[in-house]
Amino acid sequence: MAVENPLQDLIFQLQKMPGIGPKSAQRLAFFFLSLPKKDVDQFASVLAKTRHNIRYCDRCFNIAWSSRCGICEDENRLADVLCVVSEPRDILAIERIKAFHGRYHVLGGVISPIDGIHPETLRIQELMTRLRAEPVKELILAINPTVEGDATILYLTSLLQSSGIRITKLAYGLPIGSDIDYADDLTLQKSFLSRTSVE
Amino acid sequence: MAVENPLQDLIFQLQKMPGIGPKSAQRLAFFFLSLPKKDVDQFASVLAKTRHNIRYCDRCFNIAWSSRCGICEDENRLADVLCVVSEPRDILAIERIKAFHGRYHVLGGVISPIDGIHPETLRIQELMTRLRAEPVKELILAINPTVEGDATILYLTSLLQSSGIRITKLAYGLPIGSDIDYADDLTLQKSFLSRTSVE
Repeated sequence: MAVENPLQDLIFQLQKMPGIGPKSAQRLAFFFLSLPKKDVDQFASVLAKTRHNIRYCDRCFNIAWSSRCGICEDENRLADVLCVVSEPRDILAIERIKAFHGRYHVLGGVISPIDGIHPETLRIQELMTRLRAEPVKELILAINPTVEGDATILYLTSLLQSSGIRITKLAYGLPIGSDIDYADDLTLQKSFLSRTSVE
Repeated sequence: MAVENPLQDLIFQLQKMPGIGPKSAQRLAFFFLSLPKKDVDQFASVLAKTRHNIRYCDRCFNIAWSSRCGICEDENRLADVLCVVSEPRDILAIERIKAFHGRYHVLGGVISPIDGIHPETLRIQELMTRLRAEPVKELILAINPTVEGDATILYLTSLLQSSGIRITKLAYGLPIGSDIDYADDLTLQKSFLSRTSVE
């Protein structure tokens, strides 16, 4: 007496998305049924088109429509400051704050031997090649403050210590709007060690 | 210095989904970029195909691949018990418990004058036609226990009181596994009023 659910293929596909379980997938399937056909067609075509047309910038490995990303093609970006990130999504976050006007380099991850990610898996060789060719004076390591991120920062710093390039990393400390009472011990410790003078 | 985000069209589409804000949409966009092209093509094609091919059953208005849904086409389903629901998704939930072996009728909503949903907006006329043509002895009103749901149950009950058909509704009370201390007042009140003898 089992009756086939006509939405089961769609629910199966929707469940592939991260954070979407069977219930959410079913709710989404009914949501798509409620949309006009042309809206669903547009959704599906933008999805497939984006996946097929997106590529990675030849120079910095950011996502791009052509061989160079929008940032590398922008003549106004400073050539002497390079910001190293692990993933293209970090570039989107940094671009949002509009505080950095240099170029980027995407490593493609952080060193994590347990996940099989070693320095040679990352785009560190490509970074070295760029540093020889470009007039970079400061390298900002905008890597997540995690064990793997710190290992990556340590590796890059030791690799570049004799290069004469200024190496910096993002400040660690209490997030703005947070509560000292709720801060985790490591963050609180970091914010004490890196305390700054009140002007 | 604003740089176009190559994912912005896709993020815009993904944000149309209920419960997906800008951050989740961006995370999903990167997820789709990480999938093989053929998987994304399959996702997009199942989505468009399902939206184009799904229709509503001519008899019960459940979702279907053809003019009759799988349940109406099933000869083994009982013809004398009809379960009235507001939406096709309620049928999926009831089918999961495997406790009902009759047929369904989808109203397409519940009476809610504030949202412009009046009895004539719902498929009540179609229900009356079915009750004249089919040998229905019991009508189970499986409608959400809300103000609008109760109004719909009241309306249908008064409409059918002289029909000789037994009208039932689902039991209201404490959900299994719940805590009396946390139950809302209305549910607790209902569970007292509808208390049952312990055998």
